[in-house]
Amino acid sequence: MSQVYERVALIGLGLIASSMFWAIKRGGLAGEVTGYARTEETRATAREIGLCDRVCDSAAEAVEGADLVVLCVPVGAMERVTEEIAPHLAPGATVSDVGSVKRAVIDAVGPHLPPSVHFIPAHPLAGTEHSGPRSGFAELFDNRWCLIVPVAESDPEAVRRLGQLWSAMGANVDEMDPDHHDLVLAVTSHVPHLIAYTMVGVADDLRRVTDSEVVKYSAAGFRDFTRIAASDPTMWRDVFLNNKDATLEILGRFTEELFALQRAIRTGEGDELFDYFTRTRAIRRSILDAGQDVDAPNFGRGAAR
Amino acid sequence: MSQVYERVALIGLGLIASSMFWAIKRGGLAGEVTGYARTEETRATAREIGLCDRVCDSAAEAVEGADLVVLCVPVGAMERVTEEIAPHLAPGATVSDVGSVKRAVIDAVGPHLPPSVHFIPAHPLAGTEHSGPRSGFAELFDNRWCLIVPVAESDPEAVRRLGQLWSAMGANVDEMDPDHHDLVLAVTSHVPHLIAYTMVGVADDLRRVTDSEVVKYSAAGFRDFTRIAASDPTMWRDVFLNNKDATLEILGRFTEELFALQRAIRTGEGDELFDYFTRTRAIRRSILDAGQDVDAPNFGRGAAR
Repeated sequence: MSQVYERVALIGLGLIASSMFWAIKRGGLAGEVTGYARTEETRATAREIGLCDRVCDSAAEAVEGADLVVLCVPVGAMERVTEEIAPHLAPGATVSDVGSVKRAVIDAVGPHLPPSVHFIPAHPLAGTEHSGPRSGFAELFDNRWCLIVPVAESDPEAVRRLGQLWSAMGANVDEMDPDHHDLVLAVTSHVPHLIAYTMVGVADDLRRVTDSEVVKYSAAGFRDFTRIAASDPTMWRDVFLNNKDATLEILGRFTEELFALQRAIRTGEGDELFDYFTRTRAIRRSILDAGQDVDAPNFGRGAAR
Repeated sequence: MSQVYERVALIGLGLIASSMFWAIKRGGLAGEVTGYARTEETRATAREIGLCDRVCDSAAEAVEGADLVVLCVPVGAMERVTEEIAPHLAPGATVSDVGSVKRAVIDAVGPHLPPSVHFIPAHPLAGTEHSGPRSGFAELFDNRWCLIVPVAESDPEAVRRLGQLWSAMGANVDEMDPDHHDLVLAVTSHVPHLIAYTMVGVADDLRRVTDSEVVKYSAAGFRDFTRIAASDPTMWRDVFLNNKDATLEILGRFTEELFALQRAIRTGEGDELFDYFTRTRAIRRSILDAGQDVDAPNFGRGAAR
């Protein structure tokens, strides 16, 4: 594969940025990759493990001369970072991000950018429950989707080039408008995370069932919630604060349905439960057919296998 | 390893029974294993794949001469099956089950058994999202828990022997009383399944987000819910109808906490969200330490890796 950008600057060095670095190296997709992280500790780790060709001590230094700058910080930190780098951006550079919400990022970042740069928000739908500079790996985006969310002023050629980078990092690329993005993600990601966090919190709080029982007997379903609920707290706080409307809308739908099932349990409506549980099986089949999961039995996974 | 029972009869040939058969064969734990399933189709499949040493056309025939009979049918079918086999049970035989609720099984099965047999309910906490006779594998119980739930009359020696079988099939064995079992499982399994089913149902219902979008973009969290929500509908209908009180109690706690988080989102209480999400991380760590899950990055799994 060949170089898509001359110099890529990664601002924030967590799971997504570190995976981007390794994917860019795997494909030889950039001449140089610079990186910046807010804490001295993260920068030291990055230097130790060879994450980024050059780790800089300021965001301003990292973006200098870059033709692509990617904001890989929590959504709530994007405005501050943008203000910091704006005066140092090269004319003609593309500024993108990897935030899980898009309307709020557009509102926070857009107004601070000089008119000489291209602003093209994006969101790779990939992740693990791990975070930090050591958690990245080159294959994270393989066969995953990256949603590019152009704003009105986005230059088509710059959009095409950013899409080319994500494709070359292994992702399938789609375009979507910001409000629809935020609704789709509320359904497929944000509300599922919130209810997983809640379920784990309930288990932890319950005085009549001990934590050690919850842990010992977690293989029966609960375990998969703890995996989701182990994701980065700062990132998720910012997601919910910045996708409030869609999250609350879907949460409303969720509790409505949950109450209907709760009522069916209370009144012993077995057929209603059976029909509901049958219908949800079909979606699973579609996800397997679409290559977005593997069919290996997963609840049975464990140290002994 | 050596033989624990002379003849084991498995009534119902789904995921758990088929895994028990392969685990018993792996360890040479029984002289003969007979099997019975209600449908002709399942019996034919069992014969085709060599599941059970002998597949019988009636439950009565399957239990004849068995020193261990295990009921592996949905909880709602246990009473009928017990009535059918009761006259044919060998004196001194142990009758056990693998149902996910225990109080209701004790009430449904116990009264129909002759005093000459030992009734020892049990529940292996292992499973996958697959069901049916082809879904079993010998390793399913390795390093998983099996909860034995003796009733007042259970003979200690018979309890010890059943525990020995489960240990030899790879499980860790614990004893628990029925009501506590049903509460612990409501937390670690039943309510998590119900909310996963609900979330998948909501996604399917939502007219503003298409099913194909839900499927394409499922890797961001939703996917893990569909895996749980693909479990057997009959089994789960019966679980909820037969563990009504504990399920409704935990569901009440769940909605209480969910509403608190929803309120924090609405009012922008970032610190409250952050603290909640941080606390739930610790439980994940404990589950890994207890060997009940593996730490390999899982959200990134997929066909391409």
